Amino acid sequence: MKLWDKGLAIDKKIENFTVGNDRELDMHIVKYDIAASKAHAKMLGEVGIITSKEVEILEQELLKLQEQVTDGSFQIEEDFEDVHSKIEYELTKALGDTGKKIHTARSRNDQILVAMQLYFKENLQEISGKTKDLSELLLDLAEEHKEKLLPGYTHLQVAMPSSFGLWFSAYAELLIDDLYLLEAGLKVVDQNPLGSAAGYGSSFPIDREFTTRELGFSNLKYNVVAAQLGRGKCERTVTANIAAVANTLSRFAMDICLYMGQNFGFISFPDELTTGSSIMPHKKNPDVFELIRGKCNKLQAIANEMILITNNLPSGYHRDYQLIKENSIYAVENIKEILEIFIHAIAKIEVKEIDLTDEKYQYLFTVDSINDLVLQGKSFREAYQIIGGQVQEGTYKAGANKEHTHLGSKDNLVLNEIRKKLKEV
Amino acid sequence: MKLWDKGLAIDKKIENFTVGNDRELDMHIVKYDIAASKAHAKMLGEVGIITSKEVEILEQELLKLQEQVTDGSFQIEEDFEDVHSKIEYELTKALGDTGKKIHTARSRNDQILVAMQLYFKENLQEISGKTKDLSELLLDLAEEHKEKLLPGYTHLQVAMPSSFGLWFSAYAELLIDDLYLLEAGLKVVDQNPLGSAAGYGSSFPIDREFTTRELGFSNLKYNVVAAQLGRGKCERTVTANIAAVANTLSRFAMDICLYMGQNFGFISFPDELTTGSSIMPHKKNPDVFELIRGKCNKLQAIANEMILITNNLPSGYHRDYQLIKENSIYAVENIKEILEIFIHAIAKIEVKEIDLTDEKYQYLFTVDSINDLVLQGKSFREAYQIIGGQVQEGTYKAGANKEHTHLGSKDNLVLNEIRKKLKEV
Amino acid sequence: MKLWDKGLAIDKKIENFTVGNDRELDMHIVKYDIAASKAHAKMLGEVGIITSKEVEILEQELLKLQEQVTDGSFQIEEDFEDVHSKIEYELTKALGDTGKKIHTARSRNDQILVAMQLYFKENLQEISGKTKDLSELLLDLAEEHKEKLLPGYTHLQVAMPSSFGLWFSAYAELLIDDLYLLEAGLKVVDQNPLGSAAGYGSSFPIDREFTTRELGFSNLKYNVVAAQLGRGKCERTVTANIAAVANTLSRFAMDICLYMGQNFGFISFPDELTTGSSIMPHKKNPDVFELIRGKCNKLQAIANEMILITNNLPSGYHRDYQLIKENSIYAVENIKEILEIFIHAIAKIEVKEIDLTDEKYQYLFTVDSINDLVLQGKSFREAYQIIGGQVQEGTYKAGANKEHTHLGSKDNLVLNEIRKKLKEV
Amino acid sequence: MKLWDKGLAIDKKIENFTVGNDRELDMHIVKYDIAASKAHAKMLGEVGIITSKEVEILEQELLKLQEQVTDGSFQIEEDFEDVHSKIEYELTKALGDTGKKIHTARSRNDQILVAMQLYFKENLQEISGKTKDLSELLLDLAEEHKEKLLPGYTHLQVAMPSSFGLWFSAYAELLIDDLYLLEAGLKVVDQNPLGSAAGYGSSFPIDREFTTRELGFSNLKYNVVAAQLGRGKCERTVTANIAAVANTLSRFAMDICLYMGQNFGFISFPDELTTGSSIMPHKKNPDVFELIRGKCNKLQAIANEMILITNNLPSGYHRDYQLIKENSIYAVENIKEILEIFIHAIAKIEVKEIDLTDEKYQYLFTVDSINDLVLQGKSFREAYQIIGGQVQEGTYKAGANKEHTHLGSKDNLVLNEIRKKLKEV
Repeated sequence: MKLWDKGLAIDKKIENFTVGNDRELDMHIVKYDIAASKAHAKMLGEVGIITSKEVEILEQELLKLQEQVTDGSFQIEEDFEDVHSKIEYELTKALGDTGKKIHTARSRNDQILVAMQLYFKENLQEISGKTKDLSELLLDLAEEHKEKLLPGYTHLQVAMPSSFGLWFSAYAELLIDDLYLLEAGLKVVDQNPLGSAAGYGSSFPIDREFTTRELGFSNLKYNVVAAQLGRGKCERTVTANIAAVANTLSRFAMDICLYMGQNFGFISFPDELTTGSSIMPHKKNPDVFELIRGKCNKLQAIANEMILITNNLPSGYHRDYQLIKENSIYAVENIKEILEIFIHAIAKIEVKEIDLTDEKYQYLFTVDSINDLVLQGKSFREAYQIIGGQVQEGTYKAGANKEHTHLGSKDNLVLNEIRKKLKEV
Repeated sequence: MKLWDKGLAIDKKIENFTVGNDRELDMHIVKYDIAASKAHAKMLGEVGIITSKEVEILEQELLKLQEQVTDGSFQIEEDFEDVHSKIEYELTKALGDTGKKIHTARSRNDQILVAMQLYFKENLQEISGKTKDLSELLLDLAEEHKEKLLPGYTHLQVAMPSSFGLWFSAYAELLIDDLYLLEAGLKVVDQNPLGSAAGYGSSFPIDREFTTRELGFSNLKYNVVAAQLGRGKCERTVTANIAAVANTLSRFAMDICLYMGQNFGFISFPDELTTGSSIMPHKKNPDVFELIRGKCNKLQAIANEMILITNNLPSGYHRDYQLIKENSIYAVENIKEILEIFIHAIAKIEVKEIDLTDEKYQYLFTVDSINDLVLQGKSFREAYQIIGGQVQEGTYKAGANKEHTHLGSKDNLVLNEIRKKLKEV
Repeated sequence: MKLWDKGLAIDKKIENFTVGNDRELDMHIVKYDIAASKAHAKMLGEVGIITSKEVEILEQELLKLQEQVTDGSFQIEEDFEDVHSKIEYELTKALGDTGKKIHTARSRNDQILVAMQLYFKENLQEISGKTKDLSELLLDLAEEHKEKLLPGYTHLQVAMPSSFGLWFSAYAELLIDDLYLLEAGLKVVDQNPLGSAAGYGSSFPIDREFTTRELGFSNLKYNVVAAQLGRGKCERTVTANIAAVANTLSRFAMDICLYMGQNFGFISFPDELTTGSSIMPHKKNPDVFELIRGKCNKLQAIANEMILITNNLPSGYHRDYQLIKENSIYAVENIKEILEIFIHAIAKIEVKEIDLTDEKYQYLFTVDSINDLVLQGKSFREAYQIIGGQVQEGTYKAGANKEHTHLGSKDNLVLNEIRKKLKEV
Repeated sequence: MKLWDKGLAIDKKIENFTVGNDRELDMHIVKYDIAASKAHAKMLGEVGIITSKEVEILEQELLKLQEQVTDGSFQIEEDFEDVHSKIEYELTKALGDTGKKIHTARSRNDQILVAMQLYFKENLQEISGKTKDLSELLLDLAEEHKEKLLPGYTHLQVAMPSSFGLWFSAYAELLIDDLYLLEAGLKVVDQNPLGSAAGYGSSFPIDREFTTRELGFSNLKYNVVAAQLGRGKCERTVTANIAAVANTLSRFAMDICLYMGQNFGFISFPDELTTGSSIMPHKKNPDVFELIRGKCNKLQAIANEMILITNNLPSGYHRDYQLIKENSIYAVENIKEILEIFIHAIAKIEVKEIDLTDEKYQYLFTVDSINDLVLQGKSFREAYQIIGGQVQEGTYKAGANKEHTHLGSKDNLVLNEIRKKLKEV
């Protein structure tokens, strides 16, 4: 059933080793392979390699397969090593010689290329959408909690006054940076590779602009060798950009886990978002955010793994590339799940009142005190010495919380400016 | 001489450990720190924290320091732990109390942030420029050598006909993808962080839009906590994007090293670009391209190193961030050097005539032979069986090289389309 | 069914997110969890926390579960989040209150610790065994092919004469280095962590030496906090050591893929170990070795992923650790499969006759020529200049292949010494 | 001055690019190159390639160079690309033809191999020594503070009682695991590679057992191709093993930084080990431990960088290997400095009294309370429900701290057992 089978016995173990989990993974790209096959068939008709009648029945048959995908009945049985052989088999079974013609002027290599790039394209758009949703939700939370102070830390030491408004909207604004990268990733994958065949093009007079339009790609990856070298580059780019989002979420999750502990005690979550312990009945552990953190850290490792697999390989396809399909699909599917869970969970955050008069926060306002002296005419350095002296002698007394007025400060969050920036991505 | 010195003896060894090589590294960012100090001083004048006279003399003094930078006489002596303390010291020495005022409403944290982002911004533009230069040069080489065939490989096995035109322009087009990422990186760093102070803003009524305009930033990183969390994010983004260029160059260099060996023998370089051996007098080794490959691979490791250093740290500054200055400056300075050397070296490539009638290339044209049968009416799968049979029986005879006509194929490189794409970045 | 369930509704999506694929993974450690439970029960009996009757029926019930594992009928149903809750449930269902007592003085944390360490221990021994098998096989191949010359390369350029004997036995000897590391890894995991409970020990008077003996651990991880911190350390160590083997195999596979190509043409494999192409009927691709290379490269990425997940986490368990179970089991299971496939495949290698009189190998013996001059009294540097001059003028003529006599050279492979070293690990 | 110079002009920029910072790095290996040269010369004498008189004067001259190293006057001037050409130049300058003979039967490749392995060997021993010192110091600190309770955390939530004794000795015991790995690393590097020449041995009748004895190697890397492939393997092994130590120290440093913050407040350090802020006069930041953490994290990235550089390179030397010299020397020198600073700093730790009656620690003893009920006859699961109910209803009252008696628990640290384990490494 393998297309390249040369009629020789192949040891079953070797087969399992080489096929791996391709059947399972390919379920993520079936619909894109069908779409690309349809576009390819129509193009073959356009340039006269097959007849318009042949195009028509190929399209009908592909439509049937797509319906199976939609209703969940499509399967890649053990007999097939991947989705590509499965689909070609079905077409040939139904249409005989006409079915066999679908593989004219293409190779499995560009089938995978085009299917993966369509998959990435659609998913990067979805990931960007969810990232925007989260950013907006965080801006809403910032608005809701903007009056509530939070100690700001540097070096894990109490430093200066911050606020929940600052904290939530900081991550909202950072996600915009991640969107810039996702946008660039989209440009990289949104270039039609179909027509590169095994990486060196074809002697058939195929029309690559036709398939580009048909598949809705914004651009064409012209050079066929470049298209083939895109295998690896697309995956690295997509996973590196997903890693940027993951990094932001991981950092945020670390704050959350720390702030939920009794020693900080700044926030909590309802019981359905916390987990108990098999031996400690009092525990309400932040497992959801720990797993978000851990999974996001795992996602940040994938681009490196990709490079390790593809590095120093001379140009031209190598079977090693099969292994990056799994990682990149893993990254895509996981970041979507993580974003969904994050949005669900962060919406339920409970912000506590923090007693800033507690002794441990007694020096939270020293910089404000210094600034008061500066506004009374001292240089910053002098004022620093004075307040520093009071701290050392134990005579320092914190003043009241002072309003910060500048853009982006705790009392002037300019959430609308951030919203505007978010909209413009 | 350390600004935060509390008058206590500090063990010299500890000092060396903590200061590290900051003095040396900071030489890369002196001019940006001076520019940011000037903008900050002018802003302090605008909002009335210092007088216009004070602004004027601060500007003059900063100008003098900038002149020292320009003429190469500026130094960060052992007495200073970094460029920031050095500059503040010089201003204070020259201007007394007025000099001390420069540090009003700012922190070393945002000094480093803003200086690094200015450094990244200017350098990403330069790197993009060099990347474009290389892409254009490769397109010229593709044009020059477009008629010359090259065996195309898959799995390191002879596969199908390729050409030097395809090979050179493939990397040219891939570099465009890298430019998309560099462009996104530029957006990330081109947002003014100044005013975030120690990461939580300031009680002074500073005008962050003023410094944004003054420093030529396209945008403002509004939220002060986000600005501080940009430490790490900027570095990771910049190094990840540089890694994309490095990946393309590394892959290209691998091809070059392989093709220079006697077993391929496709290209060579003049003697000044090759290296001998201490024991083998016949060697002309491709050390330049091996070092390009190796250094590019090293550059691809940096983003991972960054993540390892910054991962799982709660929000707020930690001293660990000092360590990512070195890596990111290393990445920036190295990719510039590598691009320069690459451009210099690739221009001197000597393309050899390849004898495609050699026995080892006898099956280079089997796909073309199949396609001929298909155009005579066979399905691809039938034609494949026929030619495959001839190969197994040893009766296969290669036809002549066939013209490939579709976009991006060896005989239709559409270099102008690639040039257009390049220009549009 | 979850042990820590506090009676609150838990959103299904969240549950899937948190449980992940633990059920599937835990099938790898069932038998170790049963063994550890048995040892724990016996120990509870020894110290008088449960009666000897209770020990007996717990043992019987655990034996039944072990029989299910052996006959393949054991399952972790959807109702259970992991193997630990499943087993406790079965004991309680069968034995009522006595079943519940099994969890006295232990925590899921140390159940996982001990089960994973037993799994690692047994598997590291198996991996070492297979590595030795491969090393021995390579020594046999070296013996078999010791007379056959192979060009030696540096910089991918023809350098000096080598031989298949040297090539095979080089990897055999390198695998010994990997065995040293596997041995150290074994020491790390072969220390009983049971009794650390949730990471801080227990107020019960448990006997940790008893369980150490019972489970066959060579040593005890005394400190309970150290035992808990072993989560992560064990996984990193095991995967880093597996990566050492993987690195050797990956390098070897790269040689194989390169040497199979037509431009080298040094070796081939029977058809069942090569793969065809969907469009090129002449292809015999080295997919098996490409996948070995790729999978080995992926294995080399895992230790880094582990560090990324666990880095900068303060001491004490975090849920993030759940994620390293998957990676470490993946590494263990894969290296075993890879070693098996490698042994199977390399045994079938076909070594070709290489025509060293081919023009491309004309300078293979220059160093030998130089050495001849040296033995006639020239200094090495002078002789180098003379032969170098001949090469440049085109007058150099290679002499015959000279015998190399020193230890470890092509004509004196000292395979027995390497065998001895291998035995001593 | 370059040994392989073929008399052709070499562009200065290219030269800088290729030489890199080798001169500076090679200062770390001068003494090993001299020692290896001496051993090589003696061996050449032994086998009759040079006369005993020549051996004598070569030895004398090498001794002079070694004296320069010892008194600090040895330099590698700009004229030389590395230490190897420098030393050969000096010998030739002093001894004429006899000096030139030193390079008979060796290559720069094995010079670097042997020098680096000697460097690694000596340094791994030193690193092991310092690691032991630190482990012992931690055991002393555990003894000193063994009575002082510390809250134990899981998920960053208050969990169960721990102690400073447990905390200090946990890291002491973990370092023993790292010593196992360092020991394995030592075995890998302690095998003489000298005699592999350019990676394929030599036609001279060299005596490799002689140099093995002379240089004090425990073993011989027999196969010359294996010896050459050791380049990369040694570096990866050494840096991976150093990374194990770094991981332990990084984790410890994270605890320290967290515990120094006001929200935990468990420990402090004298002023000379903390750092102030340029704007906050009250700050006592844990910069030393943050830099230890950051530098240790950086060290953990190096093995991955090594793999990225060397991966997928076919066997035989490539210039890329030059780049791993820097990383591995960096790793070695840094871990030594870090260990020294760590030992110096941790000795000054100030342990605070922790008020465990504070409300946030109210559930620290719930597991002990459960265990009390169990000892009164309840099953663990029942007791868990009872105490859990009290916690939920707010009626739970903590009992007194209970003694833990089992091995490795807070009240039975068995430091002597750990000391014994440490001694046995």
